[in-house]
Amino acid sequence: MTTINPIITLTTDFGLRDGFVGVMKGVILNIAPHAQIVDISHDIGPQNVREGAFVLSRQSLYFPRNTVHVVVVDPGVGTTRRPIAARIGNHHYVGPDNGVLTILYEKAEEENWPLQVVHLDKPQYWLKEVSYIFHGRDIFSPVAAHLAAGVPLEELGRPIDDAVRLHLPKPALKGNSWHGEVVHIDHFGNVASNIHRDNIGGEAAVQAAGVRGTRVPDWVKTFGERPAGALVCLYSSIDFVIISEVNGNAAARLGAKVGDAFEVEVA
Amino acid sequence: MTTINPIITLTTDFGLRDGFVGVMKGVILNIAPHAQIVDISHDIGPQNVREGAFVLSRQSLYFPRNTVHVVVVDPGVGTTRRPIAARIGNHHYVGPDNGVLTILYEKAEEENWPLQVVHLDKPQYWLKEVSYIFHGRDIFSPVAAHLAAGVPLEELGRPIDDAVRLHLPKPALKGNSWHGEVVHIDHFGNVASNIHRDNIGGEAAVQAAGVRGTRVPDWVKTFGERPAGALVCLYSSIDFVIISEVNGNAAARLGAKVGDAFEVEVA
Amino acid sequence: MTTINPIITLTTDFGLRDGFVGVMKGVILNIAPHAQIVDISHDIGPQNVREGAFVLSRQSLYFPRNTVHVVVVDPGVGTTRRPIAARIGNHHYVGPDNGVLTILYEKAEEENWPLQVVHLDKPQYWLKEVSYIFHGRDIFSPVAAHLAAGVPLEELGRPIDDAVRLHLPKPALKGNSWHGEVVHIDHFGNVASNIHRDNIGGEAAVQAAGVRGTRVPDWVKTFGERPAGALVCLYSSIDFVIISEVNGNAAARLGAKVGDAFEVEVA
Repeated sequence: MTTINPIITLTTDFGLRDGFVGVMKGVILNIAPHAQIVDISHDIGPQNVREGAFVLSRQSLYFPRNTVHVVVVDPGVGTTRRPIAARIGNHHYVGPDNGVLTILYEKAEEENWPLQVVHLDKPQYWLKEVSYIFHGRDIFSPVAAHLAAGVPLEELGRPIDDAVRLHLPKPALKGNSWHGEVVHIDHFGNVASNIHRDNIGGEAAVQAAGVRGTRVPDWVKTFGERPAGALVCLYSSIDFVIISEVNGNAAARLGAKVGDAFEVEVA
Repeated sequence: MTTINPIITLTTDFGLRDGFVGVMKGVILNIAPHAQIVDISHDIGPQNVREGAFVLSRQSLYFPRNTVHVVVVDPGVGTTRRPIAARIGNHHYVGPDNGVLTILYEKAEEENWPLQVVHLDKPQYWLKEVSYIFHGRDIFSPVAAHLAAGVPLEELGRPIDDAVRLHLPKPALKGNSWHGEVVHIDHFGNVASNIHRDNIGGEAAVQAAGVRGTRVPDWVKTFGERPAGALVCLYSSIDFVIISEVNGNAAARLGAKVGDAFEVEVA
Repeated sequence: MTTINPIITLTTDFGLRDGFVGVMKGVILNIAPHAQIVDISHDIGPQNVREGAFVLSRQSLYFPRNTVHVVVVDPGVGTTRRPIAARIGNHHYVGPDNGVLTILYEKAEEENWPLQVVHLDKPQYWLKEVSYIFHGRDIFSPVAAHLAAGVPLEELGRPIDDAVRLHLPKPALKGNSWHGEVVHIDHFGNVASNIHRDNIGGEAAVQAAGVRGTRVPDWVKTFGERPAGALVCLYSSIDFVIISEVNGNAAARLGAKVGDAFEVEVA
C-alpha cells in the first residue's frame, strides 16, 4: 500500500502539438505502468542544448530522490553521438551525450555528489525497432522506464568518463562590476543572468544591473514593491540576478536576448 | 487497494516553457507521493487575477469532492498580501489572498455551502527556504500537498473573515436588454459574457446578442446548425451567453476583448 | 498491489488555455479515480478532423493494450452526428462519428484486427446534464472512464456498421514518381507526406522529394549527416517521407502547407 510510485520527468524541445511527448509516455507506461510522469518543459528552443541544460539543472533537484529525468534536445540523433544515462547525486538522468547535463556534472563535482555516467549500449532495454530520428521514443523513454522499474544503472551500459561538456562562460568580477550574460528569458519576460547570489556574496551590495545599454538602478526583493511598469533588478527564485518590469515584459521592452552581456554593479 | 489517490489541480499564469509548473509538481510529490496532479490552465494572462478567478470557478467544481485546487496568479507575491487556504463546499483551494477566489466565495454564500478561510501562517508546512517571488513553489504547493495528505485546514493557519474580494460587476436588465461584459475569450475565439441562463430565465426569449457594435440576431443551440462563417449566439457549456463564428474565430472577427460591453436582447 | 492503472489518452483541438481539458480530467477521475490520463495533443487545428485522425492513428498504438483513447475534434457537436466508441485491435476509442477514426478502421481491416463500433445511446453512462456544445466533458469523458473502469463496450451502445469515413487520398505511382500530399507539419517544421516506406519498398531507391516547386535531392537517414541549413529528405519516425531543414524549419522556408502536392522520385 505504501510503495511509492516511481517518478519520471520529461524535458524536451518537442512542443505539445504532434503527440511526440504523448507517445513517449505510452512507451514508458508499457514498461513501468505505475510511473508518475511529470512534464518539466517541452518548449526548450529547437536544438537549443544550452537552454535545455539550464532549465533541467534548475528544476530537477526539487523532485524526490530517485526521480528519473529524461531530457531530449538532440540535434545529433542517429549520428555517432552516444545515448547516455547518469546517476548524479540521488537522481537519474537519461538523454543524449551532447553536453545537456554539463551544469549538473559541475554541480556534482562542486558538492562532492556521486556521479556516474554510462554509455547506453544494451539494445535489449530499448524498443525493438529503433528509428534514426526519434531516440526519445525508442531509447531514452524505455531506458528511463527500466530505471524507474528498478534496473540498476550499470546494467544499462558501460561506464564512461569522457562525457561531452558544453563550454559555459562563468561570470567575472572587473572593478566593481560582475560581468555575465543572459542565460534565459522566461514566460513573463524576466531577463535572467548567470550571476548568482554566491558570486556577489551579500544582498545589500548590489547597486544596479544592466543589459542592452539600459542601467537599472532599482534593487528590490520582489515585484510588488514598485508600481506597474517600473524596471527593477532582484534575485530570481533560484538566486540569480534578473531584470524585470513590474507587471510587464522586460525582455520585450529592452530587446534582451539569451547571450547578451549582463552586468551587475556592487558597492 | 481501493484507497483513492488525492487530486491536486493547478491553475497559474506561468506558461509551460520554464519548468515553473514542473517544479511545483516535484515539490508536491515529495510530500504527497500518491497525488494525482491535474493541470487546469497555465495560460491565464500574466497577473490577470480576474481571468484566473473566472477559469477556476468554472472548472474546479467538476472535480471529485476533496480535490485541492492550487491557484497562482500573484502580482503581490512577497509583499504583505497574505497566503491563504479555503474550504469551499467540498473542495479545498490554496493561493494568494488577492480576490482570485471571489466568485467561489459568492457561490458558497448563494448556495449555503461551507466556507472557511485560513491565513497560512505556519512555516512548518512550507519549504524550508521561501523565496520572495515564487510562493507557488515554496508555500502553495507544499500546503496543498499537506492538505491532500490529510492535514486539516485549521492546522495550516488561523481563520480569517476578511479575505480580499474583487469587485465583479453584475449584469443588469434595462428595458428589454441585459447589459453585461465580456469576461473571457476562449481558444476558439468564442466571446463569453457574464450573462447567465439564470439571469434570462428561459431559452426561448433571447432575440440577439451584441458586442463591439455588431448585433448578432441568430440564436442557436449549437454551432453545427449554421454554415461555416455564420455569426451566432448561444449558451456556453456553463450556461453563459456567448457569441461565436461557426468554424471560425468571432473574437478576431469582431475585435472583441475582455471588458467590452456585451448586450443580450430578450423578448 | 500489482493491478495496472487503466490508461486514458486525450486528443483534442481545445488548446490548454481555458481549462476545457482539465475539466475532462476532473470528470474522468470522478468515475475512474485510478486512471492514468495522458495528453496526446490538444493543439489539433480547430475543427480539423483530418489532422486529428492523422495524429491519433500515428501515436495511439504505442500505448499499452486496453488503453482508452478519447478524441474530440467535433465541429458537429450537438447536431445529429452520433457519439461513438470503438474497439480497434486491442485499444478502445471514444469520440464523434465524423471520420476521425478512418485511418484506424483501415488499418484494422488491413491487419485483420478486431473492429467493433457502437453508437453511444445510453445516457446513464454520461453526465446527468448534457450541454449542446461540450460532449467532450459530458459524454466522451464519462464513457471513457466507464470503459477504463471495466464496463464492456457493448453495454455502452448498439453496434453499428456504417461509421462515417473520411475520403483520404492514397499516394499513386506515375512513372518513376510517387505522388502524394502533405498531411502534417510538425513543431520543427518538418513537412510530412502520406508516402510510406511500404509504398516505396526499399530505402536505397529514393532519389529526391519535392514540394511547392522545390526539389530536394539529398536523401539521408538523419539530420546530423548534413550541416545546419541543409534541405534533406528522409523517413520520419513512423516511416513516411518527410522534407526537413537541418536545425531549421523547412515548412516556413518552403511555404509548405497541409494539402500541398508532395512528390518522391525513385530509381
